[in-house]
Amino acid sequence: MEKIIKAGIIGGSGFTGLELIKILSMHKYVKFNFVTSRTYKNQAVSEVFPSYQDRNNEKLIFVEKPDESNLNEVDIIFLCLPPHKSMEYLMDIYNFINFKIIDVGSDFRLKDPEDYRYWYGIDHVMKDRLSEFVYGLPEINKEEIKKSNYIANPGCYPTSVLLGLAPVLKGGVDIENIYIDSKSGITGAGRKYAEKYLFTNTENNFYAYSTSGHRHTGEIEQEIKNMSGKELKIVFTPHLLPLSRGIFTSIYCKVKKSKKNSCAKEKIYILFKEFCEGLPFVKFTGNEIPQLKDVIGTNMCMVGFNFDERTETLKIFSAIDNLVKGAAGQAVQNMNLMMGFNEEEGLNLNGLFS
Amino acid sequence: MEKIIKAGIIGGSGFTGLELIKILSMHKYVKFNFVTSRTYKNQAVSEVFPSYQDRNNEKLIFVEKPDESNLNEVDIIFLCLPPHKSMEYLMDIYNFINFKIIDVGSDFRLKDPEDYRYWYGIDHVMKDRLSEFVYGLPEINKEEIKKSNYIANPGCYPTSVLLGLAPVLKGGVDIENIYIDSKSGITGAGRKYAEKYLFTNTENNFYAYSTSGHRHTGEIEQEIKNMSGKELKIVFTPHLLPLSRGIFTSIYCKVKKSKKNSCAKEKIYILFKEFCEGLPFVKFTGNEIPQLKDVIGTNMCMVGFNFDERTETLKIFSAIDNLVKGAAGQAVQNMNLMMGFNEEEGLNLNGLFS
Amino acid sequence: MEKIIKAGIIGGSGFTGLELIKILSMHKYVKFNFVTSRTYKNQAVSEVFPSYQDRNNEKLIFVEKPDESNLNEVDIIFLCLPPHKSMEYLMDIYNFINFKIIDVGSDFRLKDPEDYRYWYGIDHVMKDRLSEFVYGLPEINKEEIKKSNYIANPGCYPTSVLLGLAPVLKGGVDIENIYIDSKSGITGAGRKYAEKYLFTNTENNFYAYSTSGHRHTGEIEQEIKNMSGKELKIVFTPHLLPLSRGIFTSIYCKVKKSKKNSCAKEKIYILFKEFCEGLPFVKFTGNEIPQLKDVIGTNMCMVGFNFDERTETLKIFSAIDNLVKGAAGQAVQNMNLMMGFNEEEGLNLNGLFS
Amino acid sequence: MEKIIKAGIIGGSGFTGLELIKILSMHKYVKFNFVTSRTYKNQAVSEVFPSYQDRNNEKLIFVEKPDESNLNEVDIIFLCLPPHKSMEYLMDIYNFINFKIIDVGSDFRLKDPEDYRYWYGIDHVMKDRLSEFVYGLPEINKEEIKKSNYIANPGCYPTSVLLGLAPVLKGGVDIENIYIDSKSGITGAGRKYAEKYLFTNTENNFYAYSTSGHRHTGEIEQEIKNMSGKELKIVFTPHLLPLSRGIFTSIYCKVKKSKKNSCAKEKIYILFKEFCEGLPFVKFTGNEIPQLKDVIGTNMCMVGFNFDERTETLKIFSAIDNLVKGAAGQAVQNMNLMMGFNEEEGLNLNGLFS
Repeated sequence: MEKIIKAGIIGGSGFTGLELIKILSMHKYVKFNFVTSRTYKNQAVSEVFPSYQDRNNEKLIFVEKPDESNLNEVDIIFLCLPPHKSMEYLMDIYNFINFKIIDVGSDFRLKDPEDYRYWYGIDHVMKDRLSEFVYGLPEINKEEIKKSNYIANPGCYPTSVLLGLAPVLKGGVDIENIYIDSKSGITGAGRKYAEKYLFTNTENNFYAYSTSGHRHTGEIEQEIKNMSGKELKIVFTPHLLPLSRGIFTSIYCKVKKSKKNSCAKEKIYILFKEFCEGLPFVKFTGNEIPQLKDVIGTNMCMVGFNFDERTETLKIFSAIDNLVKGAAGQAVQNMNLMMGFNEEEGLNLNGLFS
Repeated sequence: MEKIIKAGIIGGSGFTGLELIKILSMHKYVKFNFVTSRTYKNQAVSEVFPSYQDRNNEKLIFVEKPDESNLNEVDIIFLCLPPHKSMEYLMDIYNFINFKIIDVGSDFRLKDPEDYRYWYGIDHVMKDRLSEFVYGLPEINKEEIKKSNYIANPGCYPTSVLLGLAPVLKGGVDIENIYIDSKSGITGAGRKYAEKYLFTNTENNFYAYSTSGHRHTGEIEQEIKNMSGKELKIVFTPHLLPLSRGIFTSIYCKVKKSKKNSCAKEKIYILFKEFCEGLPFVKFTGNEIPQLKDVIGTNMCMVGFNFDERTETLKIFSAIDNLVKGAAGQAVQNMNLMMGFNEEEGLNLNGLFS
Repeated sequence: MEKIIKAGIIGGSGFTGLELIKILSMHKYVKFNFVTSRTYKNQAVSEVFPSYQDRNNEKLIFVEKPDESNLNEVDIIFLCLPPHKSMEYLMDIYNFINFKIIDVGSDFRLKDPEDYRYWYGIDHVMKDRLSEFVYGLPEINKEEIKKSNYIANPGCYPTSVLLGLAPVLKGGVDIENIYIDSKSGITGAGRKYAEKYLFTNTENNFYAYSTSGHRHTGEIEQEIKNMSGKELKIVFTPHLLPLSRGIFTSIYCKVKKSKKNSCAKEKIYILFKEFCEGLPFVKFTGNEIPQLKDVIGTNMCMVGFNFDERTETLKIFSAIDNLVKGAAGQAVQNMNLMMGFNEEEGLNLNGLFS
Repeated sequence: MEKIIKAGIIGGSGFTGLELIKILSMHKYVKFNFVTSRTYKNQAVSEVFPSYQDRNNEKLIFVEKPDESNLNEVDIIFLCLPPHKSMEYLMDIYNFINFKIIDVGSDFRLKDPEDYRYWYGIDHVMKDRLSEFVYGLPEINKEEIKKSNYIANPGCYPTSVLLGLAPVLKGGVDIENIYIDSKSGITGAGRKYAEKYLFTNTENNFYAYSTSGHRHTGEIEQEIKNMSGKELKIVFTPHLLPLSRGIFTSIYCKVKKSKKNSCAKEKIYILFKEFCEGLPFVKFTGNEIPQLKDVIGTNMCMVGFNFDERTETLKIFSAIDNLVKGAAGQAVQNMNLMMGFNEEEGLNLNGLFS
């Protein structure tokens, strides 16, 4: 007999929460226990967001918040909340928790409370619990994730960066400096009614933002250290693309000259190939550069590279859908691992464009 | 035990063929027997079109054409070919066929060979077989489809038009004139390397085409007659939208004044509601007008209407994804009915935009 | 010696007001006396909207409102205000006016106060002055405009519709019914921070709105009567395109059968050709349908047609930039005529796309 | 009395040639002597490209090539040709030239024939003439341009890069490494009918190209040396944006630590401010990052910067319209300087988006 689990979603009407609803609705082994939305409470998901299709003539209804019986029944809860809100929510209920948690938000990613204060501007309110949340990048931490009850789901930019860097950092390539230029679709900013997210301000437009330091920088540096054992300060700059979904990241690595690096291009090729082998959601495209359209709507991260001999510079390029592999899809991938399902369950999604 | 059928696709690298591959790859009860492409023969689908995700580490490979054993084994074949090519293909093999056929192309939709010659400019080469192909609009011909071995899958524009008109035509509303203004995404034109399909000629652009008479006019008039019993000449004009996928159709019907039509708005509301009840892939939005983004990537047709009392004009609006409900999704819906599967099997697709 | 006039703009920070600033800034014979904006008062236009280029190192500054000396000096004032606001503004100052006025808004277009109440929902507050405002469609009312001090600048949709219909209505073609399907870019809705104008709600989207009756219907019917002498009720439906600028209008006219209409296509061709001859801002494209991209950024209206013999239906297609020929450009064209300048002065704008 | 010059364009139907036609058509002191196009010879520019507006009812006609009398009469010729074609063209006629030349193509930018061979793959055929062509970046070489008869118009990417780097390179900031990540609209690739330029391959897409070394790298390094006196190898990577026009460039400079660099941010601010002062076509936006939409359709380069103290990295961001400041507009700016016109003549173009 098949195991069906009960899932709850806190914050189901943002871009990430809705994407999670859509993915989970097609998962063979998941049933919704509750999905919350303050704005749309008591309304059907499919009425508010008609791109969501009801299943079996059952309307999924947003509730304001789970009641006690929900919290008793549920096997796993996904938190899709803005910065600071996940820890506030968990503070209240933490002692009564019988379920697994995946925080799709940003509160439990940084393990050092000082880092949290530096990048998020306030004190963390659950400092002593930070270490209980495993950083949920399955391609790096699969075994830990399987054993964990609490997951901090990685940020969208860090996912695109770390999956590009992992092969060379874990492979021991000696890198001096890392310059990261990321470009994201508008959904990365959340559903906000501000001038800059209007169609007329986005179409035919492109620009950099948070140029003095984006919060995801700290998360990337923490995980670089975990992968390579070295402290490396990176330069990270996000930009806004005139499209809805997707992140394309260009990474420039100054490689230290050494005997080890002769034939760098071939060696790096092998490192990428070996790292990606067997990973269902990372596809190595070699020296062909991945295209953003190919990953939109999928849980795939595509990674390619080139090596500029003139400047001893390794160029790595990665592409993901920020709402899938960069958020909701990765959360489901983590859930699959935690629950003992096949890692790919419910995530064999084809892209829409070709 | 579950029944697994073997499917073949002739013409798998066009927009429609690829979409069919993507949808069938997620269908519980279908296995590919073969998928053809002359241009990409012997290449993996996922290499040519990286937005397609291989399943279970099995690469699906394009073949030039099916061999005899394929044709012996296969349960159903989908033809995704340009005008005239389906009948040419079937001419050669027709007498040996043991499988069901869904022609996603346009060769078997018009039942009168004179109509075919008028709208397609050449003589039909399988005139005596035209009647064997059931017009595959499940919302109208469900029972016939279930019993049929051969299906002519409707055109994208006709699907959007007929599902909008069916409630009132079948409901007996007396209509004098019908003006249809359809707007389609670029994929409707197929994958062609012509100036007009370049990004620079499409972005920030919009225009009408085939204004002296589009081929789908004949198909629409044929089915209007089938639904209403009346011959009605329609005015149909297609336009190109600056987006990839989707058709939005606006239909203006001059309603004959009569006692029957008093309280027209309310009566028409009821006709729509009753028609759509129980249909898994037609959603009635009332006087709220459907939005194209809500159906992109789904097999849903959304239909809304308004009644302009000043001019006794009924305005009907429908939205579909031209590649799904307008082509590949509808073909799978027909296959489900022919094969005795649940009509919705493999088609509960959520949209990508919200 | 050349005559330089002084112009003032009330409402310079909306899409139309800003477009007017941009066009007038390149006009040889115009100097700004003042440009108002409540939101951005005391800020430079080029700081708020960097796409505006300052001239001769002089910064144009938004003021909250003109002072008395401005109103004494100015030769012409453009009102770029939302519905009801133009008449409220003029009520206060009307008796002291020494300058010409072009109301780019909608308050003085409808000449019958009953029509105004029907379509705009409130009573007009300057009923007795309505007749003093000439309807500023230069292709129809050129001589009246030249002699006028007050102009009601046509709406964007009516401009696209009336320039398409004028050749046949003035040419005496007998038309029974008119169905108008217009598609507009997002700037037509004004600069509003609402969900439906977000990039994510507009990209990959298309839909009809105001389907029970859009205000511009009354304006179109009024001018159809002025051109043809007949009262005709039209069916008009606007739609939103996923692009910033431009209106494409499709008009379907049921032509009355009569001896006069034999050889309809040729006769209509001649009517269009003769009407457009000598008009600097209407270009007849024959049976080639105009493309929206060709008019974006220009003051041109492109018009083409086809005649469907099967249904005795005349199809007319027109394309304009809603912010130029549909608003600010047409206002400048009217100013040129009122001031005795060359009609084309400052309006020989090339489009950006090709 | 005003001086009117006669201009000829070789290659008028590409994106750059057409843009040049559009800009020159609005220039007070320029008359066309001839405009060539092999593809469209004997056709009117406004028929082939309806976004171009004829002036004074005179149709500008494409000719196949200039005849002798043209070459005798003309004051200046613009070459808008693909790589290698400018030098081939000039080889034939060079000895008979009485006119000024602006090569908008790439043949005369690199001054060292070895560099030309390295980056363009063939031998230069007019090596001894390379030094006669002044590198036409007016913000750097204004005085030389004024005295020159022959101009090599800079590439689009180099323009965006060099105007960003000039303030700090000329200001003596000590820079170790430069990483340049440029993003360009599709028109940068020229008007080609290839799969990758189709709408369906560009919309919802983004990717890097020429990752092993783009030709513009050599041009950028040459001019960095001219400005700073130092040989610096740069890392340059171009990307394709899903829009028609515009380049956004992000430059990351590792600044050498030194006492001179304390308070780096303030010092750099002053360098930018001083460099841009008085330049009509470079606008310094401070720590506000420029947005691409603000320069589309204009001859403006907008430049902003930030300084990341954590990593001693200077981030510079620039935005241009690749067809204007990156090609045709800059060519007209050079022409203005060579001919003694006001540098801004005909170039005070407002942008279309806001």
